[in-house]
Amino acid sequence: MARKIRMGMVGGGIGAFIGGVHRMAAALDGQIELVCGAFSSKPDKSKASGEAFFLPEDRVYGSYAEMIEQEKNLSEGERMDFVSIVTPNHVHFGPAKMALENGFHVVCDKPLAFNMEEALELEKLVESTGLIFALTHNYTGYPMVKQARAMIKNGELGKIRKVVVEYPQGWLSTKLEDTDSKQASWRTDPKRSGIAGAMGDIGTHAENLAEYITGLQITELCADLTAFVDGRALDDDGNVLLRFDNGAKGILHASQISAGEENDLNIRVYGEKGGLEWRQMEPNTLVVKWLDKPKQVMRTGFGDLHPASLAAARIPAGHPEGYLEAFANIYRNVAACIRARVEGTKVDPIHEDFPTVSDGVRGMRFIERVVYAGSSEEKWVKF
Amino acid sequence: MARKIRMGMVGGGIGAFIGGVHRMAAALDGQIELVCGAFSSKPDKSKASGEAFFLPEDRVYGSYAEMIEQEKNLSEGERMDFVSIVTPNHVHFGPAKMALENGFHVVCDKPLAFNMEEALELEKLVESTGLIFALTHNYTGYPMVKQARAMIKNGELGKIRKVVVEYPQGWLSTKLEDTDSKQASWRTDPKRSGIAGAMGDIGTHAENLAEYITGLQITELCADLTAFVDGRALDDDGNVLLRFDNGAKGILHASQISAGEENDLNIRVYGEKGGLEWRQMEPNTLVVKWLDKPKQVMRTGFGDLHPASLAAARIPAGHPEGYLEAFANIYRNVAACIRARVEGTKVDPIHEDFPTVSDGVRGMRFIERVVYAGSSEEKWVKF
Amino acid sequence: MARKIRMGMVGGGIGAFIGGVHRMAAALDGQIELVCGAFSSKPDKSKASGEAFFLPEDRVYGSYAEMIEQEKNLSEGERMDFVSIVTPNHVHFGPAKMALENGFHVVCDKPLAFNMEEALELEKLVESTGLIFALTHNYTGYPMVKQARAMIKNGELGKIRKVVVEYPQGWLSTKLEDTDSKQASWRTDPKRSGIAGAMGDIGTHAENLAEYITGLQITELCADLTAFVDGRALDDDGNVLLRFDNGAKGILHASQISAGEENDLNIRVYGEKGGLEWRQMEPNTLVVKWLDKPKQVMRTGFGDLHPASLAAARIPAGHPEGYLEAFANIYRNVAACIRARVEGTKVDPIHEDFPTVSDGVRGMRFIERVVYAGSSEEKWVKF
Amino acid sequence: MARKIRMGMVGGGIGAFIGGVHRMAAALDGQIELVCGAFSSKPDKSKASGEAFFLPEDRVYGSYAEMIEQEKNLSEGERMDFVSIVTPNHVHFGPAKMALENGFHVVCDKPLAFNMEEALELEKLVESTGLIFALTHNYTGYPMVKQARAMIKNGELGKIRKVVVEYPQGWLSTKLEDTDSKQASWRTDPKRSGIAGAMGDIGTHAENLAEYITGLQITELCADLTAFVDGRALDDDGNVLLRFDNGAKGILHASQISAGEENDLNIRVYGEKGGLEWRQMEPNTLVVKWLDKPKQVMRTGFGDLHPASLAAARIPAGHPEGYLEAFANIYRNVAACIRARVEGTKVDPIHEDFPTVSDGVRGMRFIERVVYAGSSEEKWVKF
Repeated sequence: MARKIRMGMVGGGIGAFIGGVHRMAAALDGQIELVCGAFSSKPDKSKASGEAFFLPEDRVYGSYAEMIEQEKNLSEGERMDFVSIVTPNHVHFGPAKMALENGFHVVCDKPLAFNMEEALELEKLVESTGLIFALTHNYTGYPMVKQARAMIKNGELGKIRKVVVEYPQGWLSTKLEDTDSKQASWRTDPKRSGIAGAMGDIGTHAENLAEYITGLQITELCADLTAFVDGRALDDDGNVLLRFDNGAKGILHASQISAGEENDLNIRVYGEKGGLEWRQMEPNTLVVKWLDKPKQVMRTGFGDLHPASLAAARIPAGHPEGYLEAFANIYRNVAACIRARVEGTKVDPIHEDFPTVSDGVRGMRFIERVVYAGSSEEKWVKF
Repeated sequence: MARKIRMGMVGGGIGAFIGGVHRMAAALDGQIELVCGAFSSKPDKSKASGEAFFLPEDRVYGSYAEMIEQEKNLSEGERMDFVSIVTPNHVHFGPAKMALENGFHVVCDKPLAFNMEEALELEKLVESTGLIFALTHNYTGYPMVKQARAMIKNGELGKIRKVVVEYPQGWLSTKLEDTDSKQASWRTDPKRSGIAGAMGDIGTHAENLAEYITGLQITELCADLTAFVDGRALDDDGNVLLRFDNGAKGILHASQISAGEENDLNIRVYGEKGGLEWRQMEPNTLVVKWLDKPKQVMRTGFGDLHPASLAAARIPAGHPEGYLEAFANIYRNVAACIRARVEGTKVDPIHEDFPTVSDGVRGMRFIERVVYAGSSEEKWVKF
Repeated sequence: MARKIRMGMVGGGIGAFIGGVHRMAAALDGQIELVCGAFSSKPDKSKASGEAFFLPEDRVYGSYAEMIEQEKNLSEGERMDFVSIVTPNHVHFGPAKMALENGFHVVCDKPLAFNMEEALELEKLVESTGLIFALTHNYTGYPMVKQARAMIKNGELGKIRKVVVEYPQGWLSTKLEDTDSKQASWRTDPKRSGIAGAMGDIGTHAENLAEYITGLQITELCADLTAFVDGRALDDDGNVLLRFDNGAKGILHASQISAGEENDLNIRVYGEKGGLEWRQMEPNTLVVKWLDKPKQVMRTGFGDLHPASLAAARIPAGHPEGYLEAFANIYRNVAACIRARVEGTKVDPIHEDFPTVSDGVRGMRFIERVVYAGSSEEKWVKF
Repeated sequence: MARKIRMGMVGGGIGAFIGGVHRMAAALDGQIELVCGAFSSKPDKSKASGEAFFLPEDRVYGSYAEMIEQEKNLSEGERMDFVSIVTPNHVHFGPAKMALENGFHVVCDKPLAFNMEEALELEKLVESTGLIFALTHNYTGYPMVKQARAMIKNGELGKIRKVVVEYPQGWLSTKLEDTDSKQASWRTDPKRSGIAGAMGDIGTHAENLAEYITGLQITELCADLTAFVDGRALDDDGNVLLRFDNGAKGILHASQISAGEENDLNIRVYGEKGGLEWRQMEPNTLVVKWLDKPKQVMRTGFGDLHPASLAAARIPAGHPEGYLEAFANIYRNVAACIRARVEGTKVDPIHEDFPTVSDGVRGMRFIERVVYAGSSEEKWVKF
């Protein structure tokens, strides 16, 4: 008999931001159940979290290592199918590696790892194990992002010439890490976040979105990174010029000191025949611009959209779908792929659409190159 | 030990629109589990639906009556806590009545019933049983709707003078009920929908939203209802003048033939000191207008909002929350209230915020009065 | 040799609002020159105004009667061609009548007159004299209003079913007429404004716009008018249901107590095939909505617009044209028509597009009927 | 007796774009009259243009040299006060120099000249003659641009950290210069436009706007310029990183191949306390963003704005003012300054607000530096 796909979680105890997001995203479609977790490196907190999530005591673990070992010993009918890793960057590699080595599929928050070495090792492991590995570049899950990608792939805008991708936030305009903000604390700490601040946290989303939508790859970049807030060790703002493999030019800027901005990831792409614009904060709208015809406002679920876009919507047009639904699209696709393996069936290709370990490697490369470029006198740095 | 709240569902088999919405909304926060259902009046379809939702065979029933009887016989540790009714209007009363008479709480889709008699009987039953009854006027679940309500309650806009509430849709601009559209079919059929078309389906949402946000009650109305599409038996458009109990004046119009509109429920309220505007299709924004100061754009989760608004948001500002999250807020509050009863604790008043059977009675009164007014020569009809 | 068309002005002394608007609108295209005026009923103020407008002393008059008499005596090569009347409502009829009787064309601010009798007499005079009479329902001058009108006339939206026209302002939310506001003072004074307040001042603009764009005529209306501000003699808010001659239904509401609104005249029209939306505060955009295709955003001067729309734009797309340009379109068309008479040529029909005395009579009828309806127990009042 | 200020025009014959704009802008406020012109290098066209503008034959000249010589010989009561230069870039220097040398004030379209040498010579001439010289960076004339400037000057946003200024257009996406487009032809021709294409035509507007609003100066830049359209000699797109004299960082990009964009000049500025955003295509709105408070939507003429902003508006809030009104603000201020000299009075400092020859020199420096940077291997080029 069919059953739900079983998820074990690493990190994401009570009060965490992204852990809750993953749980809601996994739960939304009724395809996945949370069966176990190591929710915190503090056993008490892990235990309390397990209770809050209604898990049996014996499926709440004190560490990811314990979880993976114990779950491996459970019967096939009981043990988790995959691990969801929702810890800070420096605790991605450990559980991901161990999960893969023990036969568990992985969903991992971005960026992929703490540094390039870890990233490349994970990529090899995924290749050698053949397991499913999804990275939650969740913004690619939006229906109108998929519409944009499909239109460009189909040549509807002609050859792409220019890409402008922005990710302004304002929440780190002051030295929030000196308060008790857990979110600010680890993101501005090189020991937990890695070599980049804003560029790693949100710049990678921008890079991933630009490459996902256009199907192009960045080949060179030129960067000016800044830590505006006194005493901050990592960049909180970055302005980057881009060059793409087809000759297109671009701009990427990401900031956490753009005072008053919430989470305004947005992208504009211009081709020879037309352009398009998408903004995450009003994600159900895709504006398509034409040389000599009126702009069109495409909307989630309305009219004649590409199949990948339609498949990513759950409810009729005009009923706004948000961040969690886009996030859930990654989990839904992952669940479908895992289910196909569990049930020995073939997966519908429409579900094979989620960011992979290779996207994660590109993201880590972006972080490494943009930080290098930021402090380099070279104008153009190869990607 | 704490456990999830258990839901049984009436209606909502595979392919249904609103049933899927209820299931996603109930699942989102991990507080509720679907344990049983009578998903269709066709046993085969009910069974197939139960399988798709991963339910054990013995909890999938052929009728709501069977479900309620069988579940009642299960142990307290196993049986459902509440029934979720997601059928067309003419099948609200039967399962709601039987559920209440057998001690089950109820969540019911709107409008409350097929006619006033049913509505009043349900109201009495809820009163006599003391059970929880929630009506899914889901649009009241949005964080910025709750902000609007709190601001008006606090007198921030001064005495309210004018209310304009609109609910234009375009999907019934053609005779869609002559195709195989299940949604169009029952909504335009007096035998299943009742005496009203658009006024019942969406006009009641508009009426409920206006009263919820302003805290005022409609006392008189004047209506012009039309069935624009040839051969349609029920109104597909209605324009209504309103008068409120504090002297405020208003306009309510709802339409399903406003070609090109998706689901554009929106409201503007003007008081002596300022006004506000909210639009469902961009629900995380509340525009507040002042006599001599710049407009303010309030945003879900951003800045200094009222507690009821903050409590209704799940993720940081700029991460858009949509229709399902607002819908889930009703389920989350209902779950908290049921949990308090199950666990014998006191519920936080912030969770006692969902539409009740009395809101449902007002909605049915609205339907009855607006249909009467539509065909009356009287200018003003008492509500 | 070609020369500019010569304008004499009645009212509009220094500091007046609408007089300055008329002067700028007339000057914009270099087709009209202000040659004389009776700018105020106070001779001193009229004289000072004439100086400020760089007029020779002998062309600045103490009264409109003096102006018309004196100008009539000037040579054809010198005297004004037309009179522009920019006084409060109760001083429209006098100068208009006298101008027509003395052979001068007229541009008059709206509403046409103080009451129906005056309006009808002016209509007759225009007919009998054959002179040009333009009423400055300036909002019809916008390029995208003309585009909307042309699309509907061409049947692009199919048969029209529903019209929603709104004109909310907030500036009279308090008793501004008790301060030294000249604008508020006469508009709220029945002796100068007539029987209507908001309905006359802005409701007529809404009525005119709806009929201009749709080409339909209102046949019945039902109204609820209110004076919200204590002690105000005339309506400051009105909600009106409309029925049109083709069976379409509509809503018109206009308000001067919608706190925080500036001058938000807007209209939505829905036909069997699609709908459109135009908002005066962002006038260069016309949103066109389709049943099953993405919305289109048409823009002044961009792409393939109707000739009447293109002719009403002066500068390339993306260079916003505003209120004064739309106002100037009326003057430009009037100047072209007067020029044709002066030069004995045939006018291009594209210039015969401005509101006439007959539009003014409809506006006065609207005022009379809506005020009657507002205090009537009849539900539907014939227009 | 007071009189209008007298303008002579160089260029701007019938059918020209920017010439008509200058004439309308000059005429709008009734302070300036066009008295003479050398409208074309072709005497016939100049003559026909003079007739169309209702000028006497003897004030229509065959060349700017003839105009300046002849006008100089007229009496003080008759001759022009200033010259308005509206020719392509390579014909700015000649007439400007000659006008200044003969005692005439100058209004000149941007960019200031064909190259730096010319620019510097004009700057010296203005200094030595003491005459008024205005450059029509018209976008600084918008009321909400002046509000933005005043807010930053007053420190309301705190120290400025980041500036993003964009100027996307799409009209040169194809090789329009191969058609009969006069506008495209000279702008893409190095002989008439100078060393830059998009960077000169619109990049300078962006540079000027950024410096005007922030009060900062660019000190370094890094550029990537492209001619995307095959066979085009000058850049049609440019992406530029900026550094400002206070340590702020920025991005400037301008493009004429951003398909589907009209004229979307826009700017965002972020300081330590807040940010602001202004878009030319909806110019009456200024969005002000705050760290922890709701965004504010400031609007032309509404509420408590800075005096410079209020003075730049002509009509009440909600009556949109557009491109021509902003342009006219430059002419209005210039006219007031010339009038003060003519009448021997002191000018109100609020009128001394228009771009000068020094702004023009900065613009020419920008063109020179950004073109150099575009082809340089140096990362940072001093401004």
